[in-house]
Amino acid sequence: MNAPRTIGIGILGLGTVGQGVWKHLSDKKTDLESRLGVKLDLRKVAVRDLKKHRAVKIPKGKITKNPFEVIDDPAVHVVCELIGGTTKAREFTLRALKLGKVVVSANKALLCEHGPEIFDAVRKHGGQFLFEASVAGGIPIIKAIREGLAANRFELIVGILNGTCNHILTRMGEDGLTFADALKEAQELGYAEADPTLDIDGIDVWHKASILAWLAHGKWAPRKQTLVEGIRNIGPADIDFARRFGFALKHLAVIRREFKKGWMTLGVYPALVPNRDILARVSGVNNGITLRGDVVGATTLAGRGAGGDATASAVIGDIVDAIAALTSGAPTLSGDNLDKREKQGKAIRMADLDEIISPFYLRLSLLDKAGVSEGVYRIFSKHKVSIARVIQYEHPNKGRGTVTLSTYPVSERKMGAVLKELRQLKTVLEEPFILRIFSPES
Amino acid sequence: MNAPRTIGIGILGLGTVGQGVWKHLSDKKTDLESRLGVKLDLRKVAVRDLKKHRAVKIPKGKITKNPFEVIDDPAVHVVCELIGGTTKAREFTLRALKLGKVVVSANKALLCEHGPEIFDAVRKHGGQFLFEASVAGGIPIIKAIREGLAANRFELIVGILNGTCNHILTRMGEDGLTFADALKEAQELGYAEADPTLDIDGIDVWHKASILAWLAHGKWAPRKQTLVEGIRNIGPADIDFARRFGFALKHLAVIRREFKKGWMTLGVYPALVPNRDILARVSGVNNGITLRGDVVGATTLAGRGAGGDATASAVIGDIVDAIAALTSGAPTLSGDNLDKREKQGKAIRMADLDEIISPFYLRLSLLDKAGVSEGVYRIFSKHKVSIARVIQYEHPNKGRGTVTLSTYPVSERKMGAVLKELRQLKTVLEEPFILRIFSPES
Repeated sequence: MNAPRTIGIGILGLGTVGQGVWKHLSDKKTDLESRLGVKLDLRKVAVRDLKKHRAVKIPKGKITKNPFEVIDDPAVHVVCELIGGTTKAREFTLRALKLGKVVVSANKALLCEHGPEIFDAVRKHGGQFLFEASVAGGIPIIKAIREGLAANRFELIVGILNGTCNHILTRMGEDGLTFADALKEAQELGYAEADPTLDIDGIDVWHKASILAWLAHGKWAPRKQTLVEGIRNIGPADIDFARRFGFALKHLAVIRREFKKGWMTLGVYPALVPNRDILARVSGVNNGITLRGDVVGATTLAGRGAGGDATASAVIGDIVDAIAALTSGAPTLSGDNLDKREKQGKAIRMADLDEIISPFYLRLSLLDKAGVSEGVYRIFSKHKVSIARVIQYEHPNKGRGTVTLSTYPVSERKMGAVLKELRQLKTVLEEPFILRIFSPES
Repeated sequence: MNAPRTIGIGILGLGTVGQGVWKHLSDKKTDLESRLGVKLDLRKVAVRDLKKHRAVKIPKGKITKNPFEVIDDPAVHVVCELIGGTTKAREFTLRALKLGKVVVSANKALLCEHGPEIFDAVRKHGGQFLFEASVAGGIPIIKAIREGLAANRFELIVGILNGTCNHILTRMGEDGLTFADALKEAQELGYAEADPTLDIDGIDVWHKASILAWLAHGKWAPRKQTLVEGIRNIGPADIDFARRFGFALKHLAVIRREFKKGWMTLGVYPALVPNRDILARVSGVNNGITLRGDVVGATTLAGRGAGGDATASAVIGDIVDAIAALTSGAPTLSGDNLDKREKQGKAIRMADLDEIISPFYLRLSLLDKAGVSEGVYRIFSKHKVSIARVIQYEHPNKGRGTVTLSTYPVSERKMGAVLKELRQLKTVLEEPFILRIFSPES
């Protein structure tokens, strides 16, 4: 493509993100034009429903129901795919890429499900697919991994990647709300959907974490080999344990990479994070990610992980990068970069359960009679799992008690064996509940 | 310059950063070559003393005492200026830029003192000057401002930019050390120089903050209109106040921008930061910066702010950007970007003392007799400065006491007037000591 001096921008979808992109691009048009040395043409927006009320006013000639009017317009160089979903989004994305265009996307599910196909189209037709907005909203984490910290291999990537979960856990941990009340509040505030499953059961985080792992290590983690847990089962005793021993409750994505042994792990689960860790201080609807690189050490990025404006900031950041590349005549931004990483990723295996090690927290509901504790602790002792801290409560219902405890670092396999035996005890009255304790070292 | 397929890299200076760059570039050569699609030629290093013992071994033919062997070598495309200082560094930088080369620099003083001359040379000769390593070590803050958050105007940039100060204040605040002991420890650990002036009196932070302000707003803040204070005078009563009321003591650079009124402020000073703020959790030798953008909201980056490896990570990040630009045939990376910002910067004025507002903390040493407090508080009342919190101590030396207090938000001018009158009271026994209280809103 010859370096164009007017860059045409098309938008598919006018939800909160699409409206944010339109609004801020319009507001900053002059400023961006002056800094980038080009003319910006906010050319056309495609929507499903022309009549829907929107906070942003689009001039009549610039809005259409036909997405192909946007995608196929030869004066549109950058297509922002902001419709979500994976069927039409895939169709539109591939079509734009086949025309050699730059696609800017906030669509994590699309990238997770159709990543290889999308990047094949990039390689084949010389377009570009940019996705800063797909992970952690306004936080420029994709750029940090790809560019700013390019000198590094990442031993550890750990993130709070879902603002809804983080808001709920912050309200539970700091203000004593129950899960149900905190969820209800999040829904009323518009932070959680009517059906909150994707957020609170970890699916949204699993998508984002998969993208980060693939970006850093070139490997898509198989869903079956990934632990994905949500936050539904966290109760007051867990919050109490966290508070007494100096932890914050966070829903984490943890990606570890062992370079000598050649493995990677990806886990999505609620965890206890020591209060001294900077991630413990990422509260409310914010997201935060710590990257530990072999050269730079630990670097943390935190900020608004969702919302129309924050995500629009990431989309516009990608548009600015696209413009810089388009006007310099560079054929692609960094497609071969990812290409080579994927080649390296082929050599990586997922860790097995003996290799994934952390301290654990465990909550047990026990029959309250003599000898019960001994039976429980005998199982730990048999598997050589050392216990670090214990709290035991009387239960308001006579005849049962709650025990919460933490262990020293132990493998997932060993902990699994302990849980299996605990479940078989008649004195254990409910399914044991576990949390991992995040420790940057383990 | 035609897109070269072998990129020659030269290094000036082999201190801890130079050694880190050499080591990590050598270690990752294959990986980077594969990702970037070029050959890397670690071509030559210039040092002052060939015989000095270094942890990194450079092959004999690749080390020289003559910097021009590096700069003038036509096969060197990227010159890393890592010698520090501003005289020779300026000469070498300008010479490389005149040859149209990319200069990668960790030299904040050079950029502060000779920025306009350097960027003139960039514009004239088509080279490039990259400086991610000059501010906050391994944290990719320059890239975040220039690229990732390009959609934003920054109302507030606040940073902990000196690891030595932060280590000292962390040890004082969390472990009860005196300033003198914490400084001594920092020197023993190699975090502070034998002459620690540049670090603990705020000069180093002033350089870094000036660069951030110029990058974000296009204006070099005049030194005379900038408050620059260090951390020498912080005492136990200040730490005690902070702990009792939920603050951490941090040495901050604060850059505020008011878009409607057209002003900017830059201040470097120790401050009380509320514990709930994420910057309160940036401890030890780490750096942290919060950017508040009008689109994205508050985004924080934190990590290692100094040290050979972290700074080398930033230098290599810039080298990778340079290679991407050189191989795409792009004439410059983003020179005109800064150019246009500087044009906008011309319209900005520095705020005057009425416009700079924050809550203050004040420590007074008072004669201990009836009526003294009334005389003090009368001055606050006269200037309509409201007091929020007070602690009064008996002093071990009979006849004097210490009062620490905080105010509601008030302008620098008003607070200056209060201080002036306090100094004139005979009952005020020492120079009043003030700290600003950081509040993101004010």
